[in-house]
Parts: sequence; structure tokens; C-alpha cells
Amino acid sequence: MSVNAHFTTDENAQYFACGYSCDHGIFLQLEDRAFFITDARYTLEARQSVQAGVEVVESADLWTKAIELAHKTPKLYFDKAQISVQIYERLATGLGGCELVGEIDYHRKQRIVKSEAEIALLKRAQALNVEAFESFARHVASAQGHVERALQFKSKEFLTCSGAYDLSFEPIVAINANAAKPHALPSPEVRLQKGDLLLADMGIKYKRYCADRTRTAFFDGEFSFERTQYFKDKTLQKIYDVVRKAQESTIENLRAGMTGKEIDAIARGVIAESGYGEFFAHSTGHGIGLDIHELPFISPRSETIIEEGMVFSVEPGIYIPGQYGVRIEDLVVVKHSRAEVL
Amino acid sequence: MSVNAHFTTDENAQYFACGYSCDHGIFLQLEDRAFFITDARYTLEARQSVQAGVEVVESADLWTKAIELAHKTPKLYFDKAQISVQIYERLATGLGGCELVGEIDYHRKQRIVKSEAEIALLKRAQALNVEAFESFARHVASAQGHVERALQFKSKEFLTCSGAYDLSFEPIVAINANAAKPHALPSPEVRLQKGDLLLADMGIKYKRYCADRTRTAFFDGEFSFERTQYFKDKTLQKIYDVVRKAQESTIENLRAGMTGKEIDAIARGVIAESGYGEFFAHSTGHGIGLDIHELPFISPRSETIIEEGMVFSVEPGIYIPGQYGVRIEDLVVVKHSRAEVL
Repeated sequence: MSVNAHFTTDENAQYFACGYSCDHGIFLQLEDRAFFITDARYTLEARQSVQAGVEVVESADLWTKAIELAHKTPKLYFDKAQISVQIYERLATGLGGCELVGEIDYHRKQRIVKSEAEIALLKRAQALNVEAFESFARHVASAQGHVERALQFKSKEFLTCSGAYDLSFEPIVAINANAAKPHALPSPEVRLQKGDLLLADMGIKYKRYCADRTRTAFFDGEFSFERTQYFKDKTLQKIYDVVRKAQESTIENLRAGMTGKEIDAIARGVIAESGYGEFFAHSTGHGIGLDIHELPFISPRSETIIEEGMVFSVEPGIYIPGQYGVRIEDLVVVKHSRAEVL
Repeated sequence: MSVNAHFTTDENAQYFACGYSCDHGIFLQLEDRAFFITDARYTLEARQSVQAGVEVVESADLWTKAIELAHKTPKLYFDKAQISVQIYERLATGLGGCELVGEIDYHRKQRIVKSEAEIALLKRAQALNVEAFESFARHVASAQGHVERALQFKSKEFLTCSGAYDLSFEPIVAINANAAKPHALPSPEVRLQKGDLLLADMGIKYKRYCADRTRTAFFDGEFSFERTQYFKDKTLQKIYDVVRKAQESTIENLRAGMTGKEIDAIARGVIAESGYGEFFAHSTGHGIGLDIHELPFISPRSETIIEEGMVFSVEPGIYIPGQYGVRIEDLVVVKHSRAEVL
């Protein structure tokens, strides 16, 4: 199979293409040769880490070197959402005869179906993440009166195992009304009290692959992130059970060959039927891998056909402004045409 | 004074221009009107926070809205290092008659001289940062045997006051040989022992303004980040004293009206004179404000003329590969033509 010539500065795309990445590097694939261009700080490490066949090139001026290496290439692909006007202009000037082809998600498209090795890493990431949820739940159980911000800060100690792992994203730990806000910052004032709802949306990275998981739970002196939860408030209990049903029936009924929007419609249908449709404003899920959000998207507009080996989140929610929000999220991989929870 | 029409997506530039920012917003300044375009998640907050005269516009498709608002504008400036080819193409198509002028650092140039209010915020940020250094030093004093990674993780608790403040950047806490690496990751194995050198380069944000400070210190059961340090190793003591002299004489001798490279040459001269010139490979300093690195740069190539009200770091260092690294960093503001340490 012939490979298109292309380049990327994105660290995850670099890593995927050559087994190494850094914040000052360019991966350049020509028709017959592959290069990793970086500066003196990174070349030693890069040479030890790149896959066979990739040449590490040291340069104090990466783009000048890239132009030098690519100057005979007739056509070069890149992601036009990733490359700035400044870099594009340099390349267009420096590579006079070369056709520069900007395609959105050029590199991400290559990562949409995961290999067995990648699925194993994602499984391990999520398993470690589940352990952190359990440790955090034990902490919450005795955290009555703690402020939201202290809980959120503490969650990072469990998630990262005190710095051993990176976070996939800044964790969301939100009580009651704060759980209804899609971009809530942890409050320095709201204290955890008996009868509260607590939503935790958290993820770590294992060998660069991202985990992601959300649980919503009831605090009554005791606390766990078990899937079955008993809330005192009857309306809240109903909402919780609707979200749970939406999430479980999506996982049970999705099939390879459906589009992203058909899968989204399963969750959205359950919630709409219960009368809470207007309170579920986001997508049902997103792909995950080296990026916390990548292809495929499971949204009302996604025409992507879901295939074996794709990994994504299933995370419907219902949010009642000023009161509470409920979301339940797991990751699934498509295997034997069905969803298998990671 | 007439203002050029311009736009930005950069959060710090948004904030500087209109007192509010978010990760899905565009600030658009036309000749006579200023707009902040964002989606439904942020409009309420934006309306409460923007400066007088800025109109908050809600839209699910920010760029379509920007094109609609700017369609009669003859000339629109932007930072071409910040805008992707994708966005540029949309604007060029949508704004047929408009001249799009891409200038590098277009918005950052407007922030290079700080107002009194900004200087006060930067002072407060650094004062809180110094307090965190002191708390962290007390922790290190009784941390013999702790691994570097645990120390680095713990530093974040002191820096952020358990989540009350954000970090300006991921702190560097490095022992001996690791302190010689410019992009060292904290080691899970290296343990702090008597006789070790410890370098800490750390900063917090206060009301979005960044602090930044580096100290290098000797651990011998006792520990402090005092400027005067006594190392057992005589060569290391000499290196430390050279770095200290380079840093102090730069702060003492720099003047408004010098270029960045003239200031850089003061520090570089002291180090070169001592014979360690080849071991000081980075710039002497960088501007700081809403960004941890912004204009002006104090480097061998910087032609920027340093003016009253500019704020930057002075941070020479000497790095002996495989052995140790020494760096001392403070922030200064140019006042009455001289440097005043923040």
C-alpha cells in the first residue's frame, strides 16, 4: 500500500506514527522515508525511542529542515485545523512546486480503529481509573463537610497515584446544582452534606492512552460509586434511573454498521420518552485513545459508520439547572459487532 | 486614537481585551464596536463579566457569526501564529471584500507594557509563590529519602493551596543530574539524600497573572531556599556563586532603553568570563503576564527595546550534564529606568 506524504506537529499524531513525540518536533512522512525532526534537547531520547525506519534529524530550525527534506515532494498532506497560517505560508513559499493538501482530521482518521495493542492499553487505563474511583469513594465516605474544591483536589491524588500517572483531563467533582453545569469549576464554599448528590467525571492516562468514566452517587454518610443508587428525592431517583436505562440500552443495542447518530438516537430516545429530552443537551459519546476526545463522535450529526475496533464513551445525562445533574459514562470497544465495556 | 479592527480566539487576548474569556469564544473589535461571541454555555457569565462597551453575542456557530458581524469591515488584523489554515479559509471565503492581515504577536504586542493594576497582580502572584516556596522548603527539610516525583507532586499542594490557585506551569523539582536537564520529568526512583542539590522552578497564577521563580539549594538534613547556599562540592559552590553573580549583576545593571540582547549579554558575560559559557544554553529571561512566556524576550537575538512597565524573568543557569544544574530566577519590573524585583 502506498502512503501519502504528510506531516504533523501534533504530539499524539507524532507518537502514533513513530513511537515518540515531543512538544518541539515534526513528523514528516515522504513517499519512501520517514523523519522525526527535533532540536538538540530531544534527539538522544528520540533516537532511542523511534520505530525502525524513522530517521531522527536534529535541527535548531525545524521548519527549514522540513522544507529541505521535502523539497522534491509533489504533494504533501496536513491537517488544516492544526497548522497555523504562519507555518503554512513558510511551507508554501519554501516548497514552491509542492501541492499542500489540507484535510481536517487527516491524522485522527488514521487512529479511529484501534489495534489490539491499543485496546489493551485503553483497558488497562480504565481498570486503573476504576481503582481510583474506588479509593476516592472510600475517601468521600468520610468527607462530610469537606468543600467541593478540596474533594476535587484530593481526587487527583488517587487518580495519579500521587504523580505516577497523568490525568486525561482536569477531573470534575460536583455536588448538586454544580453537577448541572457543563463547565462547573469546583466551589471553595459548597460543603458535602448528607442527602447530597455527587457527580465525578474523571480519567487518567496509562502509557499515553486515556481513560474516562463518570458516576453519579448519593451521599448519606455512606458512599459508593455502585451503579445502583438510592436517592431520597423521588424525582431525582426517576431521573437517575432514566439516565441509567439510556446508558445501558445504548450499550446493549448498538451494533457495528450503525452511524454515530443512530447510536446517539438510542440514548436520546430513552430520555425523550421519559419527558426529559430538553435536559440532555450534549452528545452521547466521543471516541477516545491518545486524545481524550477523538473520532468517532456519537452525536446527532455524526454520519461516521461505527466499525469493529472503535473505542468510545457512552455517557448520556440529564441536567436540571439549579438543582442537580446526572451522568453515567463508560467506555466501550466494538467487538463481534457489539459493544464490550472496557 | 483609532483602533485597528482585529479578532482573536486566544483566551488571554480575549481576557485582556474585554475582561472575560472562555475556551469557545472570539473577541472581535471592529472600528466602532467590540463583540464577544460565544455559545449558550458561557453567555450568562460573559454578560456579567465583560467590560462596558463590549457586546456579548450568543451563537452556536461562532465563525459564521463573526463573518456576519465583520462583513463590511475593509481590513481585519489577526495573529497568524494563532489562527489555523481552516479558520483562515472560512474567513477569506466569507469576508470576500475584507483584507485579512496576519501579524505575528499582534495581540501580545499590546500586552508588553503592563499597567499599574497588572503590576500589582503580578506582585501579588509572586508574593504568594514565595510563600509556597517557603512552605515547600519546610516540607523538604524533613523529606530525606522521598523520591523526586513525590516531592514534585507535594509541591503542587503548597503552590495551589490545595486547589485554590492554578499553576502557571507544571513545577520542576529536580535533584542533582536531573537539574541539568532542561525538560526533566520527575523521577520515581531518585531519592533525596544528604549532600544533594535540589532545583525548584515553580509558579502559580493569581487572578490569571503568572508567577515564576527558581531556586537551587543544598540539602543536608536542613533545607532552605535562601539565596546564600553552601554546597560541599567546591566546583558546585563556584558554579552556584557564578550564577548568582550573573543574576544579581543583570538585575543591578539593566536599564530601560537597552535591547533584550544587551540585557542577555550582561548575564552571559559573567558566565562566559568564569569559563562556563558553553553550559548556559538558554535565554536569560522572558516576559510574563497572562502568559507564562510572553514578550519581551531577553535572549541573544532580542532586538526589543526594554521600556518602563515591562515585566520579565532574569534566570541565568549553568548545567553540567550528568552532574547538576544551577538556576536562580526572579521577576523584575522596569521602574524609574531600573529593575525592581517583584
